[in-house]
Amino acid sequence: MMALFDEPAAVAGVFTRSRCPSAPVDWCRAHLKEGRARALIVNSGNANAFTGGVGAKAVAHVAEAAARTIGARPGEIFMASTGVIGEPLDAARIANVLDTLAADARPDRLMDAAKAIMTTDTYPKVAAARVRLGGAEVVICGIAKGAGMIAPDMATMLAYVFTDAPIASSALQPMLSKSVERSFNAITVDSDTSTSDTLMIFATGAAKNAPAIEDGRDPRAMAFRRALDKLLLNLAHQVVRDGEGARKFIAINVSGAASRRAAKRIALSIANSPLVKTACAGEDANWGRVVMAVGKAGEKAERDKLDICFGDIRVAHHGQRDAAYDEAAASAYMKGDEIEIGVDLGLGRGRATVWTCDLTKEYVAINGDYRS
Amino acid sequence: MMALFDEPAAVAGVFTRSRCPSAPVDWCRAHLKEGRARALIVNSGNANAFTGGVGAKAVAHVAEAAARTIGARPGEIFMASTGVIGEPLDAARIANVLDTLAADARPDRLMDAAKAIMTTDTYPKVAAARVRLGGAEVVICGIAKGAGMIAPDMATMLAYVFTDAPIASSALQPMLSKSVERSFNAITVDSDTSTSDTLMIFATGAAKNAPAIEDGRDPRAMAFRRALDKLLLNLAHQVVRDGEGARKFIAINVSGAASRRAAKRIALSIANSPLVKTACAGEDANWGRVVMAVGKAGEKAERDKLDICFGDIRVAHHGQRDAAYDEAAASAYMKGDEIEIGVDLGLGRGRATVWTCDLTKEYVAINGDYRS
Repeated sequence: MMALFDEPAAVAGVFTRSRCPSAPVDWCRAHLKEGRARALIVNSGNANAFTGGVGAKAVAHVAEAAARTIGARPGEIFMASTGVIGEPLDAARIANVLDTLAADARPDRLMDAAKAIMTTDTYPKVAAARVRLGGAEVVICGIAKGAGMIAPDMATMLAYVFTDAPIASSALQPMLSKSVERSFNAITVDSDTSTSDTLMIFATGAAKNAPAIEDGRDPRAMAFRRALDKLLLNLAHQVVRDGEGARKFIAINVSGAASRRAAKRIALSIANSPLVKTACAGEDANWGRVVMAVGKAGEKAERDKLDICFGDIRVAHHGQRDAAYDEAAASAYMKGDEIEIGVDLGLGRGRATVWTCDLTKEYVAINGDYRS
Repeated sequence: MMALFDEPAAVAGVFTRSRCPSAPVDWCRAHLKEGRARALIVNSGNANAFTGGVGAKAVAHVAEAAARTIGARPGEIFMASTGVIGEPLDAARIANVLDTLAADARPDRLMDAAKAIMTTDTYPKVAAARVRLGGAEVVICGIAKGAGMIAPDMATMLAYVFTDAPIASSALQPMLSKSVERSFNAITVDSDTSTSDTLMIFATGAAKNAPAIEDGRDPRAMAFRRALDKLLLNLAHQVVRDGEGARKFIAINVSGAASRRAAKRIALSIANSPLVKTACAGEDANWGRVVMAVGKAGEKAERDKLDICFGDIRVAHHGQRDAAYDEAAASAYMKGDEIEIGVDLGLGRGRATVWTCDLTKEYVAINGDYRS
């Protein structure tokens, strides 16, 4: 997949926290500070991760070839690779098709781009919105690929957002970093972090009648920031819904924690618990496992202040089973496709929401039956 | 299960790190500092966790009843409960059978005790050794229950060690705390921490001709410490081998890390990774997932210094696939019941070993198919 920007676009990005990132992640990080993008190139099948100096050379080779093809500098080319880890990437195979890709680029091929970066995703993930910026209307749209297995390796999350708004990199980066905390950094399928996770935003500035935004906190950009939050959350939810083997979409709402950070850690502890996730798969309103996951999170929790809800059904109140708890109603609730687990710690004002999916036998089949 | 000590035994213990521990865990912690035990009582079926003030009263009720039965103080009675979370414990049901339990206690019923604390463990877990202490021989033996599901709640690990060595609580506690770091705190089945995990050691001092040990570092107790390490490791391994749905026993050896703590965090990151565990279940020598798990551990790692082995087969060397790597040999190795994954970070001298089991569809079936 190759995306072209006719004029240099402002760019910002957030990347995997892995200590062993892929070669293209290293490349993108290094060139992000220049803040100008002319093309984005994504390949699947080979992650170009754990490939040492050979991997770095392959990235440079593709960037140089692309720069020649479109008349840009190599540092204006951004890349991602997703697939097998540890295999050298055949850069020539990619370089050889760049001419064709560039010639076939069209403004209306966002859905094609979303399909091109799919691996075992079961559907393409696209979102778009129109939003006011100053007196003008701008477009913001994005694509993502998610938690489908990339044979034979891990789920890799890639997401790209494009806008014609004239927003500088210096403003885009804080907007993106803030927005990601409540979207892509608040979802988990299986707690495993890819070496290649990448989220980037490109702002072409083609909406010439919109005001130029240099500061992320500019009040004129408030509607844009909200639209970005909503779009990223939309894409992140699509990734969770298409999680490997997933049948249920689960929201974990934690409130009353000592801090927002504590709330998020507790929410992630619940969302990553295999026992909570298998209980959801089994449609079991097993709130004892939620207690366990709160307890193991390492954050402040007082048993005698804890409330737990499944949807609107309060199952535990002040550290004990709710006297009014109706097992049949809770069991019926768990049969739905969407489950909300609410935890109130009764300690402070920290709150966070995290989204995940259930852990099914299909997850094990997808990840265990495969032989590389 | 009731274990009796005719004379007050010295006692030490380590407990779950959960912030929502069970009522018996709270009780044991509170009375441990008195350092004297006359009885140990364990029930299964109800965890007496998340039961608030009612739960604490139930524990006190059982302790008082047991103290009356055997002529001791309530603080000399230690307890554990394992089973459903959030249900009030019927203390009278336990108190009513204490007379019978006390009357039936025999010195040769260790195997019966191991069986009594089983839940869905598939076999009782027992270990024993004879060891020199000063000029005398003492006995050290233990039982454990593990990662079998306790319908409908989580795996709870309980382990009890008994010795006739005359070792004071002040010496027992540091010995136990140190030993547990390389045994029970170095195993993981599914990363979920129970509210009830308990490991206790009781030293009766019945070996009258052995020297009294007051200090854990006493050189006369070196053989005892080694035997304790070995016995705890033996029991911990039995727990992993009997992990829910487990078919393979996996050792993760991490070396060359920046510190011992870093090595252990990296080893646990690998051992808890669903993608590594499903790869083992699928007999897939998927070292890319090991790289991923090293990367996400949050500890210092340099891709270009990393070596990875499956058994004796080096699959990756200095951040790249090993040139001599033989896929067929690695695949054959993965078919074994015991798998060793070696990771050398090439950074420092920190090393750690952690043990786990594979993640199979049976794990999901055990934990997901059940409806409470």
